[in-house]
Amino acid sequence: MGKGLPKRDEDYSLWYNELVKRADLAENSPVRGCMVIKPYGYSIWEKMQAGLDGMFKETGHTNAYFPLFIPKSYLSREADHVEGFAKECAVVTHYRLKNADDGSGVVVDPDAKLEEELIVRPTSETVIWSTYRNWIQSYRDLPILLNQWANVVRWEMRTRLFLRTAEFLWQEGHTAHATRAEAVAETMQMLDVYATFAEEYMALPVVKGVKTENERFAGAVDTYCIEALMQDGKALQSGTSHFLGQNFAKAFDVKFASKEGGLDYVWGTSWGVSTRLMGALIMAHSDDNGLVLPPKLAPIQVVIVPIFKKPEQLDQLRERAEQIQKALKAQGVSVRFDDRDTQTPGWKFADWELKGVPLRIAMGPRDLENGTVELARRDTGTKETVSADGIAELVPRLLDEIQQSIYDRALRYRQEHTTPVSSYEEFKEVLDSKGGFVLAHWDGTSETEEKIKDETKATIRCIPLEGDETPGTCIYSGKPSQRQVLFARAY
Amino acid sequence: MGKGLPKRDEDYSLWYNELVKRADLAENSPVRGCMVIKPYGYSIWEKMQAGLDGMFKETGHTNAYFPLFIPKSYLSREADHVEGFAKECAVVTHYRLKNADDGSGVVVDPDAKLEEELIVRPTSETVIWSTYRNWIQSYRDLPILLNQWANVVRWEMRTRLFLRTAEFLWQEGHTAHATRAEAVAETMQMLDVYATFAEEYMALPVVKGVKTENERFAGAVDTYCIEALMQDGKALQSGTSHFLGQNFAKAFDVKFASKEGGLDYVWGTSWGVSTRLMGALIMAHSDDNGLVLPPKLAPIQVVIVPIFKKPEQLDQLRERAEQIQKALKAQGVSVRFDDRDTQTPGWKFADWELKGVPLRIAMGPRDLENGTVELARRDTGTKETVSADGIAELVPRLLDEIQQSIYDRALRYRQEHTTPVSSYEEFKEVLDSKGGFVLAHWDGTSETEEKIKDETKATIRCIPLEGDETPGTCIYSGKPSQRQVLFARAY
Repeated sequence: MGKGLPKRDEDYSLWYNELVKRADLAENSPVRGCMVIKPYGYSIWEKMQAGLDGMFKETGHTNAYFPLFIPKSYLSREADHVEGFAKECAVVTHYRLKNADDGSGVVVDPDAKLEEELIVRPTSETVIWSTYRNWIQSYRDLPILLNQWANVVRWEMRTRLFLRTAEFLWQEGHTAHATRAEAVAETMQMLDVYATFAEEYMALPVVKGVKTENERFAGAVDTYCIEALMQDGKALQSGTSHFLGQNFAKAFDVKFASKEGGLDYVWGTSWGVSTRLMGALIMAHSDDNGLVLPPKLAPIQVVIVPIFKKPEQLDQLRERAEQIQKALKAQGVSVRFDDRDTQTPGWKFADWELKGVPLRIAMGPRDLENGTVELARRDTGTKETVSADGIAELVPRLLDEIQQSIYDRALRYRQEHTTPVSSYEEFKEVLDSKGGFVLAHWDGTSETEEKIKDETKATIRCIPLEGDETPGTCIYSGKPSQRQVLFARAY
Repeated sequence: MGKGLPKRDEDYSLWYNELVKRADLAENSPVRGCMVIKPYGYSIWEKMQAGLDGMFKETGHTNAYFPLFIPKSYLSREADHVEGFAKECAVVTHYRLKNADDGSGVVVDPDAKLEEELIVRPTSETVIWSTYRNWIQSYRDLPILLNQWANVVRWEMRTRLFLRTAEFLWQEGHTAHATRAEAVAETMQMLDVYATFAEEYMALPVVKGVKTENERFAGAVDTYCIEALMQDGKALQSGTSHFLGQNFAKAFDVKFASKEGGLDYVWGTSWGVSTRLMGALIMAHSDDNGLVLPPKLAPIQVVIVPIFKKPEQLDQLRERAEQIQKALKAQGVSVRFDDRDTQTPGWKFADWELKGVPLRIAMGPRDLENGTVELARRDTGTKETVSADGIAELVPRLLDEIQQSIYDRALRYRQEHTTPVSSYEEFKEVLDSKGGFVLAHWDGTSETEEKIKDETKATIRCIPLEGDETPGTCIYSGKPSQRQVLFARAY
């Protein structure tokens, strides 16, 4: 275990970096900007994938797989798209290495230069729409409702584990529709799926909204997003759902014969969440002792730690532990019995706290005599001694309670850190003193948005879909504003 | 649907290519050598993944994720390894595009050249062992039992859907151990896992064996494999499990403090199966009418086709179909009710045959009166009219029977196409007349192996772990042979 974690109050950024490493979630790899997702971290990601994948399938989507590489010319077909991604992409130019003439190792073989360079996908709209062109002839071929689980690469210069990495894992949904209305409905449906996932699985309250033009996905007509608030008062964009209009259909000439007999361009959407959600999960809930995992995403929901001095005591405790383990597994609870004899109970307590296991059961010889166990909650730290008999009913109920309680705490934090302001002075004051979301009137121009960003580092996270819609006056320019928008400093 | 499939007898290769496309499994992408795995194909792959992943976890492995890119210098650390992979790898040399000066689109930005080129992983031993170096200090850190689901790229010049593609999906296990014996045991355990998966899920009998030096994985001490036989008499290597010895530990300086107090190199294994298994599945069982899927991997196990002329008949049939659907789902059977009114029953029958759905239930108004349905098996084509009441018990039993029957047929085919020979003349005669596996004595030299390959296109698939171990005389050189080995022409 070594020394304790840095404190959030003292250095939030260092706390995050250390937590990610010490809790065995991820680490930097020898490849610049790329991470290694360690087994414990990956098992949380697997739980996220399973939850999301189930929701995608329930809403009629199926998975497919498209190539890693995108011909350079494809990227250029949609003007905004290439503008958005060309500046930070990995380019494959050769397909072979050879031995250096001087014996110094292998070098790129100049004779194996590709005719056309390939881009490692930063996102797959182009390669997918070029394929849809062959799949879609008539309205009968629509809608197409696909999702892909994949790795993508964006050559970020400043990277941070999970939050911003050159390679990351994600899912990208790509759908094609016969009408604008249907594509818009799909965009909103997937935004709702993301919000539901964030709230129900990640215990993370989110604001749903639409991005300003500046922050829109390169190639979209509208970008919708879910925005969450971290414990340092900074916002984190946690998922996006794009209404693509007919942009990619036009770029790749994807038309269909409509019911009415016409020939129209197809309407599209795309939507994605990534391993960035891991960063959100960690930063939203964890504390100075380590991770706090919502039970629905915890790889291990309950750990049983035996407290003993003599080996024969362990044998007796093991028997009881195995009964409990069996009873809990029958309830669908994942349990680990930590019978390592190389570590003290205190060390184990701290280790499982660091790993964010929601419930700890501790028991010693006296508990065996009394038919009790000690239950400790990771989220609140409360402990109670309870009868071992009722444990199989108690634990699932407690896990539900913990899930709700973590959500409630995050919601309370967000409520306390969402501040409507009516002047630019107040805006700056709130940003500097408590951070969080700031609701303010904005005149709707990119110019004002940029100026506020330059002066305060705060960006418009979104124009919320709900909440106060009263018109007012822009805090910066004094011009009319249609409604308050959501500002924050963000990851 | 269009025209029927090509016949296997007439053009096996064309039959395969057409089947893969028409059954909506995969297609070639606009990126040379890369495929698009279509939703129906991907859903079979998902079932394979789920089966394998469960077996990996039962044997103590967890998943993790390592970078897509490998620094060029890493690839070179292990001499055989670089030799094996350098000739066919995708090389990333730049990290940015820019607008061409002449406005002709985007070009590679020469100012964004990487200091060291990155290779898109053809396999991940190097990047993983460089990471293990930091994870392993003492015997207490061992074993490490990891698996990764990932995409890899090998720049193959002649590609075929699923069988040989530049990019493919796979899993790669990478384990680290304190002793040679433990690593060997792991290698054999995973070989057994693969064989069990092939036989129990894919209904595909396989021969377990060890590769000759020529066919060994680049960097391994020993490569074990499972070999399957396709219906055209050609073999297909379906999975490999490598005992790496200390090769990668030495290349990346991975040592550990042993229990006895010494400092030793770590022992390693790696093992993988890929989307190539899709090719094996398709080629081993399917027929001139389309796919034949073993029920355990069929995305849809039962399809219900209503036979009706008037719309009100469909309503009555729908009611019965929904009862059946519900009853089957309760038994864990996946069912599709095909109520499309745009297609005839005959068209639907042919379509679901093409897609390989194991069981078809057809029913018309007369069946409703009689309380019956017609059941048709995809594997044998047999039909029977049965009482609708008992369907929920009958279907799971039938699915088990089909699974077994498909396996038995493949095993019978293999038995009929495994021929021991005692002379080179006979060897060539068997290869040309019936193909299949040929068991023959071999003198153990690479020279003989190469000559036989050059003259007959047959390779040593493996030295089987079981079967006749009597010594003899090499069919080619007349020199002593320790035992018969398994030859075949192969994919």
